[in-house]
Amino acid sequence: MAATAELASYILSTRLADLPADVKREAHRALLNYVGCAVGGSREPAVDIALRALTPYAGKPSARILGRAERTDPLHASLMNGISSHVHDFDDTTPKNYIHPTSPVASALFAYACEHGVTGADFLLAFILGFEAESRVGNAVYPSHYDVGWHITGTAGVFGAAAAVGKLLGLQQQNMVWALGLAATQAAGLREMFGAMGKAFHPGRSAQNGYAAALLAREGFTGSNTGIEGPRGFAAVQAAKYDIAKVTNRLGTDFDLRENTYKPFPCGIVIHPTIDACIQISRSRTIKPQEIKAVRLQVAPLVLDLCRKKDIHVGLEGKFSVFHAAAIGLVRGKAGLGEFSDETVNDPDVKAVREQRTTATADPSVAEDAVRVEVELTSGERIQKNVDHAIGNLGRPMTDRELEEKFTDQAARVLPANQVRDLTAMCWKLGELGDVRQLVELAVPR
Amino acid sequence: MAATAELASYILSTRLADLPADVKREAHRALLNYVGCAVGGSREPAVDIALRALTPYAGKPSARILGRAERTDPLHASLMNGISSHVHDFDDTTPKNYIHPTSPVASALFAYACEHGVTGADFLLAFILGFEAESRVGNAVYPSHYDVGWHITGTAGVFGAAAAVGKLLGLQQQNMVWALGLAATQAAGLREMFGAMGKAFHPGRSAQNGYAAALLAREGFTGSNTGIEGPRGFAAVQAAKYDIAKVTNRLGTDFDLRENTYKPFPCGIVIHPTIDACIQISRSRTIKPQEIKAVRLQVAPLVLDLCRKKDIHVGLEGKFSVFHAAAIGLVRGKAGLGEFSDETVNDPDVKAVREQRTTATADPSVAEDAVRVEVELTSGERIQKNVDHAIGNLGRPMTDRELEEKFTDQAARVLPANQVRDLTAMCWKLGELGDVRQLVELAVPR
Repeated sequence: MAATAELASYILSTRLADLPADVKREAHRALLNYVGCAVGGSREPAVDIALRALTPYAGKPSARILGRAERTDPLHASLMNGISSHVHDFDDTTPKNYIHPTSPVASALFAYACEHGVTGADFLLAFILGFEAESRVGNAVYPSHYDVGWHITGTAGVFGAAAAVGKLLGLQQQNMVWALGLAATQAAGLREMFGAMGKAFHPGRSAQNGYAAALLAREGFTGSNTGIEGPRGFAAVQAAKYDIAKVTNRLGTDFDLRENTYKPFPCGIVIHPTIDACIQISRSRTIKPQEIKAVRLQVAPLVLDLCRKKDIHVGLEGKFSVFHAAAIGLVRGKAGLGEFSDETVNDPDVKAVREQRTTATADPSVAEDAVRVEVELTSGERIQKNVDHAIGNLGRPMTDRELEEKFTDQAARVLPANQVRDLTAMCWKLGELGDVRQLVELAVPR
Repeated sequence: MAATAELASYILSTRLADLPADVKREAHRALLNYVGCAVGGSREPAVDIALRALTPYAGKPSARILGRAERTDPLHASLMNGISSHVHDFDDTTPKNYIHPTSPVASALFAYACEHGVTGADFLLAFILGFEAESRVGNAVYPSHYDVGWHITGTAGVFGAAAAVGKLLGLQQQNMVWALGLAATQAAGLREMFGAMGKAFHPGRSAQNGYAAALLAREGFTGSNTGIEGPRGFAAVQAAKYDIAKVTNRLGTDFDLRENTYKPFPCGIVIHPTIDACIQISRSRTIKPQEIKAVRLQVAPLVLDLCRKKDIHVGLEGKFSVFHAAAIGLVRGKAGLGEFSDETVNDPDVKAVREQRTTATADPSVAEDAVRVEVELTSGERIQKNVDHAIGNLGRPMTDRELEEKFTDQAARVLPANQVRDLTAMCWKLGELGDVRQLVELAVPR
């Protein structure tokens, strides 16, 4: 069977009972992380602007946008969920293909769930299948597709959204093949948009376009039967080198969800080891900012190439300062969204540690995911901390507890504390919900 | 100035008085041809299905769909106009880049005009500028972009729609640059969809996406400043070879509208020479299908690249079969919409000539608008016919009268004769209209 057809058949024939327990567990972690990102990013200007521009064209407001009071139609809700969940660059990553995989799939699914009502079990099944479809299509074209300049989260994401929504719509085999074909012909998103709101637009548009592909295919709008593998299909057109077999190899046995990772800090990845080490120091004992005499960092040379700014004034700059990374780790003991605000960047304690006491030297023997930190106290005591692999990567995944803390930090920007607590608990039980709208209602302001 | 910025600046600064009279004249021919295609295609299943699938998600019905009674929001109207105007593969072509240029631009503009009211003069200006933007971006990446498998009508079309709608919205320079950037990141459409409804989806989606790009950019949604020419921008990512200078060379002096052509036959343009030659043979003498022993075609290599299917079952597939082209030319002596129906494709006489007796060889010495045909009869007689320039191409353009006849054939499928007559006359006077809604109202059933 051809790849598109085989993938469609697998999506349609798979039941929740066919999926391993650890995969379902990881799906809950991915969705908890996603909901936190979507709610946490929901008040960013990119979302406000997109709503202002497109609401005059939106349809019947049968769907919620996570984190927002407004309702809109499910296609526009998919778009908005996708923008908000990616706008902080804080969502998940599959390192094997650099896709941020949950946003395109879950952004469409939560919108769909608002309109139709879906059990947690069905939602979970559709999510896992959409995730796998997206990641496997991505694997087939990675790395050449990404290297040339495609934002693979958008280009692969549309397949995941089409697969997930198509599964819930109960498409027939031919219609699912068309849905994947209509996804293939909308696989867009250029890395040239990095640094602009256009980047966060990609997972949103892929969610919306995948959803629309499934709706069109259900009614009989025909696409190619070979959208992925055909001679003028997605892989051949959008990758110099590709391996179609990766779409279907060990389908139902290997799950890319097992290789999903979560970002602990919303900033440049090369300063993650410094944050990690300094948080560990601050948690090991109580240190007042005034007690810190000197902070000495030994970092990979790339870190100073990218992140050597000390004299900074706005939050965004903090995301690319290794000195700010050390300061917030030691002074605040954490590095959530609040630690990259204008207020924190200008906090006198943070500023003093960052600008007057922290120094960094580039050492080629230090790996890019490692750091060596020495903190000298006014008492003369010296505290050493080396990190070999920063938290968040596959070798040192974030714990459930850490994911919850990240979630709380994000969601509390928008929702009251008790609602955040209830939402956290419900995310862990998503698979058992009678109707996912219960969760969505907890994820919007009351 | 960089290409995207220079193109934006040109679009925003150009007035109707800056445009040559012959260009404005050709714009009227293009729009007459477009309206005929849109009205004529408006009752096809692809449009019915798309409406059925997406109307539940459509917004305030402030726009008309040409040829239909239904109203919808302007973004969905752009999509539907794009599908209907391309579904017969009967719309215009710029041979230098194989774009079907009017559909993406005019499909968005007619929807915009319904919502806002636009004078004929402003409409004409926006159309010409959108057409040029689209065609010039296409020129920069043609042929490698097309050859690898992009449906350039969709990928370049989105720029034209964004430019045209952005012009009418009165965007500022920075916002127009973003609009073109947001267009660049949605430049999608694979040739793998040829033969399916997905093909007609492309100009529709590009019209809709370009329109949305302009709306988003107006409100301040940021895209890259270098969406076309950047290192990870449209040209670098979507073409192995490209020449960015073609976007802006002799801007305001050379107009691609002068090189626009109109199709006499509703099918892939590369099979027009074959149809032309075979119709000429069938008109020169009476040949019964049973007398045809062999049909031998020598065609340009691109023809077999695009249209080599023989074993076809639905009318849409016939539009991309050079073998079907030969069969209908010889058996039916014409190639109107009826010759690309399911019935004709399955007609035993047509099928026998197509599948059992016609062969084609690719010959690089044959131009893309030429063909050499040899028909061998059971009597042993051989009839030769060479066509150097198929009717409808630049060297043998359709006259205004022929365009009107084509228009009448198409529009009469949907509208009564007197309305068709009035609509024809109004299309020729589009540039003088006080409000383009007058024309739109004539293009829908009363």
